[in-house]
Amino acid sequence: MTMLNVQLTSPLTVTTPKGFKATGIHVGLRRKRKDLALLLCEGGAEAAAVYTTNQVQAAPITVTKQAMATSGGKVHAVLVNSGNANACTGQLGLEHAYASQHAVAEQFHLAPEHVVIASTGIIGQPMAIDTLLQGIEQLKPDTEETQAEDFATAILTTDTGTKTAGRQVLLNGEVVSICGVAKGSGMIHPNMATMLGFLTTDAAIDAGFLQDVLKTAVNRTFNCITVDGDSSTNDMVMILASGAAQTEAIEQGTTEADQFQQAVDQVCQDLAKQIARDGEGATKLIEVKVNGSKDELLGRKIAKQIVGSSLVKTAIFGEDANWGRIVAAIGSIDEPIDVSQIDIRIGSQTVLRQSMPVLFDEALASNELAADVVEIEVNLNQGTKSGHAFGCDLTYDYIKINASYRT
Amino acid sequence: MTMLNVQLTSPLTVTTPKGFKATGIHVGLRRKRKDLALLLCEGGAEAAAVYTTNQVQAAPITVTKQAMATSGGKVHAVLVNSGNANACTGQLGLEHAYASQHAVAEQFHLAPEHVVIASTGIIGQPMAIDTLLQGIEQLKPDTEETQAEDFATAILTTDTGTKTAGRQVLLNGEVVSICGVAKGSGMIHPNMATMLGFLTTDAAIDAGFLQDVLKTAVNRTFNCITVDGDSSTNDMVMILASGAAQTEAIEQGTTEADQFQQAVDQVCQDLAKQIARDGEGATKLIEVKVNGSKDELLGRKIAKQIVGSSLVKTAIFGEDANWGRIVAAIGSIDEPIDVSQIDIRIGSQTVLRQSMPVLFDEALASNELAADVVEIEVNLNQGTKSGHAFGCDLTYDYIKINASYRT
Repeated sequence: MTMLNVQLTSPLTVTTPKGFKATGIHVGLRRKRKDLALLLCEGGAEAAAVYTTNQVQAAPITVTKQAMATSGGKVHAVLVNSGNANACTGQLGLEHAYASQHAVAEQFHLAPEHVVIASTGIIGQPMAIDTLLQGIEQLKPDTEETQAEDFATAILTTDTGTKTAGRQVLLNGEVVSICGVAKGSGMIHPNMATMLGFLTTDAAIDAGFLQDVLKTAVNRTFNCITVDGDSSTNDMVMILASGAAQTEAIEQGTTEADQFQQAVDQVCQDLAKQIARDGEGATKLIEVKVNGSKDELLGRKIAKQIVGSSLVKTAIFGEDANWGRIVAAIGSIDEPIDVSQIDIRIGSQTVLRQSMPVLFDEALASNELAADVVEIEVNLNQGTKSGHAFGCDLTYDYIKINASYRT
Repeated sequence: MTMLNVQLTSPLTVTTPKGFKATGIHVGLRRKRKDLALLLCEGGAEAAAVYTTNQVQAAPITVTKQAMATSGGKVHAVLVNSGNANACTGQLGLEHAYASQHAVAEQFHLAPEHVVIASTGIIGQPMAIDTLLQGIEQLKPDTEETQAEDFATAILTTDTGTKTAGRQVLLNGEVVSICGVAKGSGMIHPNMATMLGFLTTDAAIDAGFLQDVLKTAVNRTFNCITVDGDSSTNDMVMILASGAAQTEAIEQGTTEADQFQQAVDQVCQDLAKQIARDGEGATKLIEVKVNGSKDELLGRKIAKQIVGSSLVKTAIFGEDANWGRIVAAIGSIDEPIDVSQIDIRIGSQTVLRQSMPVLFDEALASNELAADVVEIEVNLNQGTKSGHAFGCDLTYDYIKINASYRT
């Protein structure tokens, strides 16, 4: 596969792919920080999205799903606000969501069904709708890199920094960019919910196949983040394809499709890792790989079980190579596996072989567990497939952040 | 139902039911504390047990399951050691487990299949089998209350205290006692695994029906404790029925069966609450009741989801009436429910009605959340059944306890 490895003079942002403008401003939904963001594709983009599986879904999720269904996955504008999730707000919340969608449509001369919206922030509070509507009038999206940065900033809540990623690939001789931005500090802050991700590309691809690509990428990446197992009412990942790179449409089953899938996977992976690492109170990223599985799904499930175990997470915070907790996490999976031939590696050392403890250097293990990134590898020795998952350690600061009063 | 409400001069212990002797001693598996316990029913008891669902099962679990299968649920002796779980110890561990079973059989002139064993403590370490075997020779079980207390003490690991419970019921004019003892600090300590429970009764009941009664009781009680979602390699709850109360055998479908079930439920419930409250680092017991469910199982599942949410647990530690996290936990259940008409009560105050926030007194809520026991009640308003669950808050001390080195 042909990846461009040249060091680019400017970073890859959501406005790097041709056809996109962005902006992010402060309108007053939050006290001081930027809180309103817009992504615009004037020519219209093929779009695909995945949403939270939580049954309690915020008003913007409902409105966006309707728009996507009505337009058949054609999106011209994405409005995102932080500061208020517009969740558990009933009929009034729905009216506010429609009002903001229509205001964007009017402002940029679009059909309402070509405008999608996302919100993140406190739940159960009515949206300051006048503030939001006045804010929409001030949105002046552009292709400038600084505008893309403002977009990345305005969607944040408790995140400690912006999260961006990008790849460029050569498809039939043309440079195609795939870029993304995300928010989410891996756990849900007191009523500051939500993981959001927005990807842009100038590839030409129809919405149906784009949905397949996104779903595959999200399952391999964002869905492999496990932080505290809680899922939000507002989660959404969306990809918009402008087609402005002027390549032929990417068709399923072609080499180009593989290249494109791989690039989307990588962008999502980069963002997912940034989210996991930014978990509330986290001091390190934990990467778990499960090899020797009968299928990818089981491998991923076990990897998530390990990285989601409070006991494993706490042990790693304590720099303790506690393989017993890893074994217990593996064994608690609800699918039958052979537990008699498991190998476990923590950092550079094998600590369990064929399900029996192996002598290892505890001091070296502690040193390795003190690093920024901790790797755990499991071999089930009962197949050829692998799955992975990402997470973070569980620390005093998680308790501190999440035990504090909402006010 | 006829419960005896007289205040008894002596507490109810596992030797209160007729036909049982017990003891607990220090043999050296732990440094100073009692570490070997025996429960003896010389006349033989009908027995029933439930075991961990973790696929990684310790050697004593394997040996006990075999004994129960061979004997058809007839048990004369239960040997329990703390200090070493004999888990992840391979063939040698299995040999050690058989050796201890046979040593008890020899010591008390029993068939080996009438001896069951349980272990709790560090995993992945070979058992100090000589110490254990020498210890078995010193066991002198008796009916004394102090001996029963020693049994309750010797099975503990990180528990802050013994956990005992008991009920007496009149069945056909005879007093029948149902008593129990448990260990488990609700979460798995660094390699100090396991929740164990042992119940004794002098009721007459056959092993098959006793199994049904125990399973029902465990599902309603022990299985409603959720602390950190991790499950151990050594968990076991067992009930022994000596028949020594000289009543007629309890038959399924009778009033006596209902009375007996209720008493077993209550004993298990008492023990389960003691375990939840003794969760590592816990400062309070959280009781969640979900009403208005279409069935008991769904209600229990949702209750467990709420009490198992790290965000809910941390909010309650922070005395924060954060209903948003409760709603998010409810919505994340993997079974379709109507999320539009949920009521939530925290302490004495309704905070959500028909899925819409209700103004409440935050100061009063915080005061109530500072109590030892916190009650959360959810009404799904879509059925007539209820389920409940118990747990504890997630605190700095949980991190402290679990992040410390094993050594």
